[in-house]
Amino acid sequence: MNVKTKDTCTIAARGNMTLLSLEEVNKMMELGRGSIHELFRKCCLAVLNHDAQDDDAMAVLNRYPDFEVKLIPRERGIHLELINAPSQAFVDGKIISGIRDSIFSVLRDIIFQTTEQNTGKYDLQDSFGLTNYVFQILRQGDVHQYGKEPNLAVCWGGHSINRVEYQYTKDVGYHLGLRGIDICTGCGTGAMKGPMKGASVGHAKQRIFDGRYIGLTEPGIIAAEAPNPIVNKLVILPDIEKRLEAFVRLGHGIIVFPGGAGTAEEILYLIGILAHPNNRDVPFPFIMTGPKESAEYFEQIDQFIRFALGDEAAKFYEIIIDDPEQVAMKMTQGIERVREYRAEKKVSYYFNWGLHIEESFQHPFIPTHENMSGLKLFADRPLNELAADLRRAFSGIVAGNVKEFGRKQVEEHGVYQISGDTALMEKLDALLLSFIEQQRMKLPGSKYEPVFEVVK
Amino acid sequence: MNVKTKDTCTIAARGNMTLLSLEEVNKMMELGRGSIHELFRKCCLAVLNHDAQDDDAMAVLNRYPDFEVKLIPRERGIHLELINAPSQAFVDGKIISGIRDSIFSVLRDIIFQTTEQNTGKYDLQDSFGLTNYVFQILRQGDVHQYGKEPNLAVCWGGHSINRVEYQYTKDVGYHLGLRGIDICTGCGTGAMKGPMKGASVGHAKQRIFDGRYIGLTEPGIIAAEAPNPIVNKLVILPDIEKRLEAFVRLGHGIIVFPGGAGTAEEILYLIGILAHPNNRDVPFPFIMTGPKESAEYFEQIDQFIRFALGDEAAKFYEIIIDDPEQVAMKMTQGIERVREYRAEKKVSYYFNWGLHIEESFQHPFIPTHENMSGLKLFADRPLNELAADLRRAFSGIVAGNVKEFGRKQVEEHGVYQISGDTALMEKLDALLLSFIEQQRMKLPGSKYEPVFEVVK
Amino acid sequence: MNVKTKDTCTIAARGNMTLLSLEEVNKMMELGRGSIHELFRKCCLAVLNHDAQDDDAMAVLNRYPDFEVKLIPRERGIHLELINAPSQAFVDGKIISGIRDSIFSVLRDIIFQTTEQNTGKYDLQDSFGLTNYVFQILRQGDVHQYGKEPNLAVCWGGHSINRVEYQYTKDVGYHLGLRGIDICTGCGTGAMKGPMKGASVGHAKQRIFDGRYIGLTEPGIIAAEAPNPIVNKLVILPDIEKRLEAFVRLGHGIIVFPGGAGTAEEILYLIGILAHPNNRDVPFPFIMTGPKESAEYFEQIDQFIRFALGDEAAKFYEIIIDDPEQVAMKMTQGIERVREYRAEKKVSYYFNWGLHIEESFQHPFIPTHENMSGLKLFADRPLNELAADLRRAFSGIVAGNVKEFGRKQVEEHGVYQISGDTALMEKLDALLLSFIEQQRMKLPGSKYEPVFEVVK
Amino acid sequence: MNVKTKDTCTIAARGNMTLLSLEEVNKMMELGRGSIHELFRKCCLAVLNHDAQDDDAMAVLNRYPDFEVKLIPRERGIHLELINAPSQAFVDGKIISGIRDSIFSVLRDIIFQTTEQNTGKYDLQDSFGLTNYVFQILRQGDVHQYGKEPNLAVCWGGHSINRVEYQYTKDVGYHLGLRGIDICTGCGTGAMKGPMKGASVGHAKQRIFDGRYIGLTEPGIIAAEAPNPIVNKLVILPDIEKRLEAFVRLGHGIIVFPGGAGTAEEILYLIGILAHPNNRDVPFPFIMTGPKESAEYFEQIDQFIRFALGDEAAKFYEIIIDDPEQVAMKMTQGIERVREYRAEKKVSYYFNWGLHIEESFQHPFIPTHENMSGLKLFADRPLNELAADLRRAFSGIVAGNVKEFGRKQVEEHGVYQISGDTALMEKLDALLLSFIEQQRMKLPGSKYEPVFEVVK
Repeated sequence: MNVKTKDTCTIAARGNMTLLSLEEVNKMMELGRGSIHELFRKCCLAVLNHDAQDDDAMAVLNRYPDFEVKLIPRERGIHLELINAPSQAFVDGKIISGIRDSIFSVLRDIIFQTTEQNTGKYDLQDSFGLTNYVFQILRQGDVHQYGKEPNLAVCWGGHSINRVEYQYTKDVGYHLGLRGIDICTGCGTGAMKGPMKGASVGHAKQRIFDGRYIGLTEPGIIAAEAPNPIVNKLVILPDIEKRLEAFVRLGHGIIVFPGGAGTAEEILYLIGILAHPNNRDVPFPFIMTGPKESAEYFEQIDQFIRFALGDEAAKFYEIIIDDPEQVAMKMTQGIERVREYRAEKKVSYYFNWGLHIEESFQHPFIPTHENMSGLKLFADRPLNELAADLRRAFSGIVAGNVKEFGRKQVEEHGVYQISGDTALMEKLDALLLSFIEQQRMKLPGSKYEPVFEVVK
Repeated sequence: MNVKTKDTCTIAARGNMTLLSLEEVNKMMELGRGSIHELFRKCCLAVLNHDAQDDDAMAVLNRYPDFEVKLIPRERGIHLELINAPSQAFVDGKIISGIRDSIFSVLRDIIFQTTEQNTGKYDLQDSFGLTNYVFQILRQGDVHQYGKEPNLAVCWGGHSINRVEYQYTKDVGYHLGLRGIDICTGCGTGAMKGPMKGASVGHAKQRIFDGRYIGLTEPGIIAAEAPNPIVNKLVILPDIEKRLEAFVRLGHGIIVFPGGAGTAEEILYLIGILAHPNNRDVPFPFIMTGPKESAEYFEQIDQFIRFALGDEAAKFYEIIIDDPEQVAMKMTQGIERVREYRAEKKVSYYFNWGLHIEESFQHPFIPTHENMSGLKLFADRPLNELAADLRRAFSGIVAGNVKEFGRKQVEEHGVYQISGDTALMEKLDALLLSFIEQQRMKLPGSKYEPVFEVVK
Repeated sequence: MNVKTKDTCTIAARGNMTLLSLEEVNKMMELGRGSIHELFRKCCLAVLNHDAQDDDAMAVLNRYPDFEVKLIPRERGIHLELINAPSQAFVDGKIISGIRDSIFSVLRDIIFQTTEQNTGKYDLQDSFGLTNYVFQILRQGDVHQYGKEPNLAVCWGGHSINRVEYQYTKDVGYHLGLRGIDICTGCGTGAMKGPMKGASVGHAKQRIFDGRYIGLTEPGIIAAEAPNPIVNKLVILPDIEKRLEAFVRLGHGIIVFPGGAGTAEEILYLIGILAHPNNRDVPFPFIMTGPKESAEYFEQIDQFIRFALGDEAAKFYEIIIDDPEQVAMKMTQGIERVREYRAEKKVSYYFNWGLHIEESFQHPFIPTHENMSGLKLFADRPLNELAADLRRAFSGIVAGNVKEFGRKQVEEHGVYQISGDTALMEKLDALLLSFIEQQRMKLPGSKYEPVFEVVK
Repeated sequence: MNVKTKDTCTIAARGNMTLLSLEEVNKMMELGRGSIHELFRKCCLAVLNHDAQDDDAMAVLNRYPDFEVKLIPRERGIHLELINAPSQAFVDGKIISGIRDSIFSVLRDIIFQTTEQNTGKYDLQDSFGLTNYVFQILRQGDVHQYGKEPNLAVCWGGHSINRVEYQYTKDVGYHLGLRGIDICTGCGTGAMKGPMKGASVGHAKQRIFDGRYIGLTEPGIIAAEAPNPIVNKLVILPDIEKRLEAFVRLGHGIIVFPGGAGTAEEILYLIGILAHPNNRDVPFPFIMTGPKESAEYFEQIDQFIRFALGDEAAKFYEIIIDDPEQVAMKMTQGIERVREYRAEKKVSYYFNWGLHIEESFQHPFIPTHENMSGLKLFADRPLNELAADLRRAFSGIVAGNVKEFGRKQVEEHGVYQISGDTALMEKLDALLLSFIEQQRMKLPGSKYEPVFEVVK
């Protein structure tokens, strides 16, 4: 394991981080103190640690206890001094440009969020306020391109997938790239990296030089899912709920590859939203796909959804097995319908303001044991309420698996207890066990210790 | 006089006005009502009326009573519908691109200022808050260029200057342009246009394609001093005080050409600031210049300053007569010293945060008759207090000459009364009379009716 | 008069002059010897002397007898050492970028022409060979822009025009520039500079940053008509005949302003070509225009053409007096018809291969006294033959006026003798005398000494 | 096997192919007839067939007997009509941009070579004439970038390498790309593709968007080694000798990966040149490298070279086993020495004019049976003569393996006979047999039939 570090190194900002107000610089300098600094330090470390083969956030952070980052004001903007940084971020003593950019994306987002939340400019208790806030973070993140037609496919799926599945995500990405589609993912490895890698080859073949590889992450997961090197637009949302909202409002369509609890969380989130009556007319291409070896996986997912939420819920997505080109063509056609719809309605191409999202999907869910055991997983609840709670259940499991907060909870209080309808609980347990068996919970090589228990 | 209008025309935003939040769009749509809309309409009209030979704001506005502008939300940002707009803004039915850009600059600035003031994000009673606000407006206005060395010369001087003087401002601009210097002015005609025109030729000869021609204006004056066509960065500051602060913090040096009351206001503003002890070490190139035919003008100014503020005040500027190349060389050298100073102090190249500006120069002065007659123009006051009040006196006269508010005041209440020390009042009166004689108060052709009376 | 010089200065090539073969470098180094070097030296001097107020080629060249230019091979292409160069080409010791570019354009064209003529690749006795050669020189000169629609207006007219006429050429240029039209001229001052200057303002207003200001010149005239500073594409054709062919095949339409013998030469050249039956269907916008003060001038030209070549010849052009916007609109419409025609015929937008040009218009005419007196100016000759000889007569007069070769001829052998039909001779004499009276032969201030005598 | 084709499709040129002379268009239209057309058709087919898993040129060509390509003149340059083209070159009916570019590179090079050879501009019997010709072809091919420091590494190695070796070539490319090094290869698959693919990831991480992936090929090999999709600069040299000269004069250093007969040819070519006394001082980084599994391969090569050419010959290269980062660092340092040397000598960065190449390495070797058996492979010959003949021997074997001409020779006349010193022949035979055993002669899956016999 590479724990070599580089003693010290100063890096200069580029782009819009070079044009700061004195107030902003002062605010950044204050980072030297308090909890925000620790957050910033952790996220920087995650980015610098970009090639690590590891998904245990705490392990990553513990490996470089001496790592430190300091801000230095300079005539052309802010500089950062990195001390004892992981050496893999450097080439012959110089930091890799893409990593420098990502470090400053981290700085930008953390400063912005800290600054804006305090001004009370955004009402984060209010649905519209939350949506507006997500938009502002994305706009700050410079993820939009002026004049571009809708062309952004969000790809979801696990960080821990097997070689065949990984190759398949690359193939789908390649065919999307050939069609000029840009990619947005959760920015880690596995199904988050493959589509970007494939698309970059497709873009190169088509001589597209401004392809976007957008990575949306959150402080809690960035250490476990460090941005892969293809990501050229990195945005850190404050929590998983805002990150999910960013995915569905920014993307023009969504492709789901095989994954574990996190992917299940994403699927339930999207179905819960699309199922809302207000969204019935909004076109939203939603494709689940994988190689033929993964066909069974999607059957399980499909059955679970149909069982838990009804057959109605299954009409929002299409499952395509083992046909990357078909996936790319369907997605391209679906995005064209999105474009037509928005042009006709004269609404924005770059952010889906019109999609209705219930507050129950927007407010942060904190995976304490109390909150987890309080979820009401009963089949007789309204579809969107049950979807919301199922989403939270999977979210808690992800936290227990790889996030710092969740892992500490489990360390202290033992595994989460999830309870509800017996029939539903049995299906849920079976699904989760199959994730474990298929090694979708953790990267291969590490043994998975369950962080939950389904109380049947 | 051209009062032809174009019935109706829709124009689409470009650049950063294409990426608006729903909240921003809604705020803009509200413009349809209330006082902000009227402000926006007037500023648009001033921009559209770009080739008019007229400096009477009210006359300009009255000539197109049917002009109207409406905002229309669209899939790629906001559109504007112009109704009964001045026809000179169009070529073969299409709006001139530079004018379109300026219109959207107007929209951007007015929206931003309206929005931000209400959030309470900026404390506009506080000196630092005001400075920060000025910076934010300039940053919004995209006037900075990443990576540029200091190279911005602010040129002040009258809109009403004679042909020889106008040619001289072009010559100075040409030699500045040859040296890669960019130009910032008050964005109207005369000494505000000549340096830009000259610099554009110098830039062309040097194959500089990204030369900045920054126009800083304010709602009160834009109708009387419509942005000249060379301006490619237009920013509307809320009032003259913020505009003056923007000039001195953004520019790396200042050149003053002959002018009238407005130019005198600018000179006194700058001397008042540079005279502050905190600014003694701050390098700030400040050159007054004109053709040999204008030598006497600068003698008068120089004498008035020395009489009113003492010989100390005269050491901040250098007067160069009839040598455009010398002016350009001195300014280039002066800016190089600014660069060295800021590099050494490790402070920003793009905004002079370190320049100390007293609050008395920052807070808006409203030229009512009461305020004007309340100015204390006594020679025994401290230099910076007297300079501040003299600045206000000239400011009021400019308002009475060309601004809508001032002209209405004078219409209703008669000419302003200015009083103080007899000796000082005599000098002031003589200076103002010489401005009138030299036709510096109004564009030639129109007879000047004094808007003030010096009570000796 | 500025005869200051800069001792020595080394300038480095940019663009495609940086990528030379060893063979090309060797060929350039050979320039140190023989007649090509002297040609190169003279052309460089003409370019460096860019701001001179002088149209006497010999005087210009004699003023800097010590000027020298040397080639130096370097790792990134060729460098030039300039010794005793006119100081006005430098700013604070550094050469002006645009002048550097022009110097290397001179080098490129002279090398190319010297090299290619020797290979026998082009058959310069053959009409198609000559046309192909002209095309190759223009392509080398990088005057085309990939993907541009037809938009190039050639402007002809005198270098010696009065202030009102000069302003008018600027106004026309401005309205052309507003419509996105690029400008091509003979690259000197007067009517060759005004349209470019006007267009540059129009382009700036429309935010067009890649406007082309193409100057086509020849070694014989470049010293007398040094490229004006707006020219950003300079091409040196070997002689006036190839230069004229370049104008008519490169441009999509032609505007003629008032001028002297050179302008008359151009008009007769164009009419001679358009009158050929093969060109009857080829759309070619051709407008003569000037301010109302110059109305008489065009009447004279029109009458002379009608008398000499018949009313038929007058239908190829349109005369518009005192309406710059109308000129620009008509030219824009005319160019649109050119585009339609070429699109329909599927022929090139960037070079008018299809225009038929008789060899009598292509082969160089050497203005010796023998050749001048041998011209057959008889009214009963076929239109195109007579037009060709009239063109030569005017060409010879231009040479005698401002070109080195012609001036030497006249110095040695006295004024040229021109003879032909009495009636025609009388009209010709009257026209030429009116050019003299109107000071169109030489720049104002210098007295014109006729270089010809019409033998009636 | 994919033999689907697309009925018909018209593609338009871009870039400099849009600005053709009528003469050039006519010349292209003549392509419809005669041998050049067939050459063009074959090369196009090879490019279109870009994803084929096949290295048998004749098989590729035979698979699409109905493929045809026609030239069509258009207003904006030449168009091509493709009939029955391989369908993998298209996405949803539109040709892939990179393939379109490559097709027009083929057209450009074949036209240029046909045109220029006929003019007699280049003396192809003369050493300098040949070098000049190679330079002209590369300059036409637009492979240079103005202002770039030396940064081009040529990578040689087999198209048929195993998975471990392929990954290794990617790793080396990645570390080169991280250091800003561009890549030039023979443009096929295997060791020609891996370094480009790796470098493209390294470039992406460093935010280098203008990385060059130069593919140099020849008509005889292009069908068997179709340009891989990363290639963004494709140049077709007329034969292997000019291609080899292009490699060594264009590249600033050379890396050799494992390969077969072609790689051996390249190694002997380079040693033969570097061994010449005139080149003793010329810095030329030359590294052989592979994964530890391939260590034995380089031992064999090294031993053969030492045996055949002496230990002296071994000092020109360095062998690095299993350390991609070390290879990249050494190459970067070596290229820095090249830069210093050229800067000091003031010679070109972009083409190594100073490298001495004997004519025996420049003139084409035609692998007829007579020529092959005529090679004099005797150990007592001077080093450079023996290297030249050994180079030819390997060249002939490559031809027999994969080129159309060679394969026909072998089909008609049986395997080539190679003879010489017994000891040398034994070593040679052993080396060739090891290539066969290691499956380096042909792509895995196809059985290799030897095309030669070593006569001991």
